[in-house]
Amino acid sequence: MENRSILLVKRPEGMPNQDNFKLITKDVPEIGDGEVLIRTIYLSVDPYMRGRMNGVKTYADPFELNEVLSGGVVGKVVESRNEKFQIGDIIEGRLSWADYAVSKGDNIRKIDPSLAPISTAVGVVGMPGLTAYFGFLDIGKPKQGETVVVSGAAGAVGSTVGQIAKIKGCYVVGIAGTAEKCKYLKEELGFDQVINYKTDNVKQKLKEHCPNGVDIYFDNVGGEISDAVIRRINYQSRIILCGQISAYNLQSIDSGPRVQGQLIQKSALMQGFIVGDFAKQHREGLKQLGQWVSEGSIKYRENVIEGLENTPDAFIGLFRGENTGKQLVKVNNE
Amino acid sequence: MENRSILLVKRPEGMPNQDNFKLITKDVPEIGDGEVLIRTIYLSVDPYMRGRMNGVKTYADPFELNEVLSGGVVGKVVESRNEKFQIGDIIEGRLSWADYAVSKGDNIRKIDPSLAPISTAVGVVGMPGLTAYFGFLDIGKPKQGETVVVSGAAGAVGSTVGQIAKIKGCYVVGIAGTAEKCKYLKEELGFDQVINYKTDNVKQKLKEHCPNGVDIYFDNVGGEISDAVIRRINYQSRIILCGQISAYNLQSIDSGPRVQGQLIQKSALMQGFIVGDFAKQHREGLKQLGQWVSEGSIKYRENVIEGLENTPDAFIGLFRGENTGKQLVKVNNE
Repeated sequence: MENRSILLVKRPEGMPNQDNFKLITKDVPEIGDGEVLIRTIYLSVDPYMRGRMNGVKTYADPFELNEVLSGGVVGKVVESRNEKFQIGDIIEGRLSWADYAVSKGDNIRKIDPSLAPISTAVGVVGMPGLTAYFGFLDIGKPKQGETVVVSGAAGAVGSTVGQIAKIKGCYVVGIAGTAEKCKYLKEELGFDQVINYKTDNVKQKLKEHCPNGVDIYFDNVGGEISDAVIRRINYQSRIILCGQISAYNLQSIDSGPRVQGQLIQKSALMQGFIVGDFAKQHREGLKQLGQWVSEGSIKYRENVIEGLENTPDAFIGLFRGENTGKQLVKVNNE
Repeated sequence: MENRSILLVKRPEGMPNQDNFKLITKDVPEIGDGEVLIRTIYLSVDPYMRGRMNGVKTYADPFELNEVLSGGVVGKVVESRNEKFQIGDIIEGRLSWADYAVSKGDNIRKIDPSLAPISTAVGVVGMPGLTAYFGFLDIGKPKQGETVVVSGAAGAVGSTVGQIAKIKGCYVVGIAGTAEKCKYLKEELGFDQVINYKTDNVKQKLKEHCPNGVDIYFDNVGGEISDAVIRRINYQSRIILCGQISAYNLQSIDSGPRVQGQLIQKSALMQGFIVGDFAKQHREGLKQLGQWVSEGSIKYRENVIEGLENTPDAFIGLFRGENTGKQLVKVNNE
């Protein structure tokens, strides 16, 4: 039985491209005592992976050259020598970009397919959902009636943040890059206002849509969009730094107006985080997210590309703003 | 009886100079019912006043053109038609740059001269001390053994921060601009290491003096010094933004490397504040600071210029780094 997998063979310089990746085929690995063999169903591609492709230690260890890439996976247990997992179990974990992966059981969790579609375990009821949940609630500490701005609003994290903000009674302004995304945010997800940063004058629209200033800014993109939002923050506002996708492919230092003066004038907080900071609370977060999704108070969309071989394309597409909602690769049928 | 006072007659462009100020002489004002007349003993000049000299609303209202400037004052009650204050009381408050000021009693507090020298009421047991106390403790949340870097370390706020950090068991590195200041910090105040940013290679020295990275950065200066410190912050570090004196006289936008990416990689916090954010806790802070000063665990220095007419000089000197410790103007004898 064959096992295809995708290696990182060249570190991207700037925007990633096909030459950075290579698909190879080997035999399916054998499992030892205590291990399980997992067949990949869905692979998740996420912007943060770009950072791991540089050879530099950040919060996550860098991907090694000529090694198989890895990320969020939903898969099925097809062999088991671990008493905690049975053949047929659906699991989620950080596993290889491959048809099959071996796990000792410590980096995977069982999914109950009766609660929600299994793909959501790497989406709205998984890492991106938790990122939205803890970043917005624990750092943002939203109060009813506050104005919330979300950049990268149509992505997996941003679209969840906006909806949690609505649940909490906030006024929500989303920033995204296509008319279709903006329409989706406003008409389907209930955002109060949207800004298309590619066609609108962002400064002008922020002034128009945030007449009372900005109390919480959930930032996925950075760069000039953030410069414009930060100019409008209120006293004791909170800036939640989740991602800076505008900077991930820059080949020079990301420079701009220093924010410190503005943060002092407004007694404002700016806080970076990753979902792992809240690891002890993940179970509680997943429970709440699952409930909101099943009640319909959080909606989600998935953008699914078929075929392991198309994973690099799906990943590169993230930086072109091609996805509305969660970007997934369907690798094998359930 | 004559009353000299100093007006702001021209808004500074860049570095302030004598032409921005004018000394005038009028009669001492008469007081009405409920008011007190105060003779100024000490005037405090502080870097934050530079922001108020621009015609722009920040956290404090701008100074008006052709009006008397104001700031922290220690004075003596010389007339009283307010039952809460007696002739001879020593008070502290935000009052005019003048020989005499009138108060309704709501913006002044009585000082007990037996507890500490009265000048400390606008220094280490006053606004700058409280700024150090709440910024460092409430935002920084120091833990024993952590590495703390303080910029503007020889100023009224910075020198207090470093000593509170030592009381809390931290390892403290101060950054200042003269050999004399560095010597004072290390030999008299007990800083563990010092960096002279005018003669040392700041990046290199930070690497040398902070081998375990930086857990707390208390920032009074901003600019390239901060860029260098922020490169060395640790996971879940705290950057306390108190001032950005390097930027106060800039005539162009203060630009530099964006900090957001680094804050995300380190799950780090950056928080601006002013002392007024902690107004409800000021009494508690003053009590603790007073105790530390009387025990000798916090030392302080004052730089005193004599004569109201020299107040502009004292103020301008702040931006030349002329003061070690608190900059005061002695206006009248006690």
